[in-house]
Amino acid sequence: MTDLPIRDELRGVEPYGAPQLDVPVCLNVNENPFPPSEQLVADAARAVAHTVRGLNRYPDREATTLRERLAGYLDRESGVALRTEQVWAANGSNEIMLQILQAFGGPGRTALSFAPTYSMYPEYARDTSTRWVVGRRDDDFSIDAETALKAVAEHQPSVILIASPNNPTGTAVPLDTVTALHEATDGMVVVDEAYTEFRRDGVPSALTLLADHPRLIVARTMSKAFAFAGARVGYAAASEQVIDVLRVVRLPYHLSAVTQAVAVVALEHAAELQARVAQLREERDALAAWLRGIGLEVADSDANFVLFGRFADRHAVWRSLLDHGVLIRETGPDGWLRVSVGTPEETTAFREALVEVLKEHT
Amino acid sequence: MTDLPIRDELRGVEPYGAPQLDVPVCLNVNENPFPPSEQLVADAARAVAHTVRGLNRYPDREATTLRERLAGYLDRESGVALRTEQVWAANGSNEIMLQILQAFGGPGRTALSFAPTYSMYPEYARDTSTRWVVGRRDDDFSIDAETALKAVAEHQPSVILIASPNNPTGTAVPLDTVTALHEATDGMVVVDEAYTEFRRDGVPSALTLLADHPRLIVARTMSKAFAFAGARVGYAAASEQVIDVLRVVRLPYHLSAVTQAVAVVALEHAAELQARVAQLREERDALAAWLRGIGLEVADSDANFVLFGRFADRHAVWRSLLDHGVLIRETGPDGWLRVSVGTPEETTAFREALVEVLKEHT
Repeated sequence: MTDLPIRDELRGVEPYGAPQLDVPVCLNVNENPFPPSEQLVADAARAVAHTVRGLNRYPDREATTLRERLAGYLDRESGVALRTEQVWAANGSNEIMLQILQAFGGPGRTALSFAPTYSMYPEYARDTSTRWVVGRRDDDFSIDAETALKAVAEHQPSVILIASPNNPTGTAVPLDTVTALHEATDGMVVVDEAYTEFRRDGVPSALTLLADHPRLIVARTMSKAFAFAGARVGYAAASEQVIDVLRVVRLPYHLSAVTQAVAVVALEHAAELQARVAQLREERDALAAWLRGIGLEVADSDANFVLFGRFADRHAVWRSLLDHGVLIRETGPDGWLRVSVGTPEETTAFREALVEVLKEHT
Repeated sequence: MTDLPIRDELRGVEPYGAPQLDVPVCLNVNENPFPPSEQLVADAARAVAHTVRGLNRYPDREATTLRERLAGYLDRESGVALRTEQVWAANGSNEIMLQILQAFGGPGRTALSFAPTYSMYPEYARDTSTRWVVGRRDDDFSIDAETALKAVAEHQPSVILIASPNNPTGTAVPLDTVTALHEATDGMVVVDEAYTEFRRDGVPSALTLLADHPRLIVARTMSKAFAFAGARVGYAAASEQVIDVLRVVRLPYHLSAVTQAVAVVALEHAAELQARVAQLREERDALAAWLRGIGLEVADSDANFVLFGRFADRHAVWRSLLDHGVLIRETGPDGWLRVSVGTPEETTAFREALVEVLKEHT
């Protein structure tokens, strides 16, 4: 690689990604453990057969039907009515993020977030040559408004990225903080709500702020609540003007006709999928309570995972769990580990393994 | 849009793309006019049903099976044996190009091509903040090696992009020119072979140069020969070291499990699809001969389209053809128009419309 004329900042960098290991219980990448129903499978196969008949033609570049259905879903989910033109879709929310930084970040500009947060963000910044700056979260992983506003004043970011619920901590950010950041900046404020369907009762979505905040973008994904990680469908809601900007930097025909078709089918099955979400929220709360019960620290979570600790040698705990057939994620601040909420059977396997592992490590 | 903090170079820019009009005969975006067979449709539906059952999990980040099958196809198509690690796949060859420029272009670097050529290239450069420079092609749309080497010496590009066959002219670039460019630069040489399966007998693929040219990348697509434009599958062949660099800048899980599955199915049907390619090559040659026969200029084409002219007012000719229900593309050097090779019925409709239109315009 060293002989090739690659950019200096990429030299020696390894591709991003959690290890894809063949382990009985995978609770490492916050997947939804419940596969789509056989009814959804049948509907998707039928829709794809129809779509494949026309695959010699380019797809609808505007993904109009999909965006219309996403708008309808957001209305049902959060009570926020949006026009189709206010919704955008792409290959995963990471393509959404890339497009946002291509349009509003880039050379000579700065993106700001608050750590610990999603480990892909600096890569999006790097890949768009955007300067990357992080402020700190408090010890409870919340964002202190005063600290945040100071960071905005100091770094003058053109994009502020806030994950809410935050990955890997699970922390939802109060809307007051979002509005304060929006007021404090001339840049864009992006709230990454990848895990928002798992939020606890009473926690609002930033979608409710869109009408009054023209530089706000809410990013979402079908990977988690919709159990559709393999389909790669992310989306965003914002003003029509903001979406029009993303349309300028998107690659033409970025979203395949097949992706559009299967995503529309999944949205038709939203009610069925949301029942699983309710189950996962209960599992999450039970898991957090159990971890606290055995004396561990647990971050409050509005997501489908739980950050717990703290361990003097977290890598040893992670490794021992893997030896017991349970793969979780070594990520976040030192001393903590993150476990995704699985099926009841998977969660049980994790608990049993952890009990064994903690015996070994004390 | 003007109130938003977008990058200066994007202000007032319209999204790229040919008009998506509802017209009886669409010969404007070089699609393959033959839809996939019912056998392929059935196989794809079955494969997708299997894939959807696991869509709650992330896809294979390395798209290993697909890349292995693509390598096998390239061996059969061009007689060049490549390892799986030498092949890369992404959402259309435009994502391939974006990744190449993210890795090897970017701020402070230059990409060079030779015009007239594919109108998306400057957009890839803009979206990666790469400086964009074009040298000129000769009047017959070939690249003069001496002129090209002078441009390389002058602009010191880190990436040279050569479409072969070229879009919109149909011109294949001799391998001598490719090797001369590779020798003259320390940068990457990208040969975009989107249309290569349509090349005439005796015209070689740049794949044959890969073994001896470590900075060469050959980009291809399933959109054209495979009649798979709607599926968005582009790919690239290069040294394993080059592919490793693309793996660093790719978004994790960039290629959906469904895309991987349907692409593998299409590759299993390659023989059937290639029979259609042979038919389209004959149609192209017949169309070029017919256009010449009625007194028009025609660029020699190794692709599934023909550039013809010249017209004092090409827009008027384009518009009149549209009024006759035939949509072609107003692109390329002034005075020329580009028509894709359609089904025999579509080509007949185009010929009949053109005869009428030329009567009106003379």
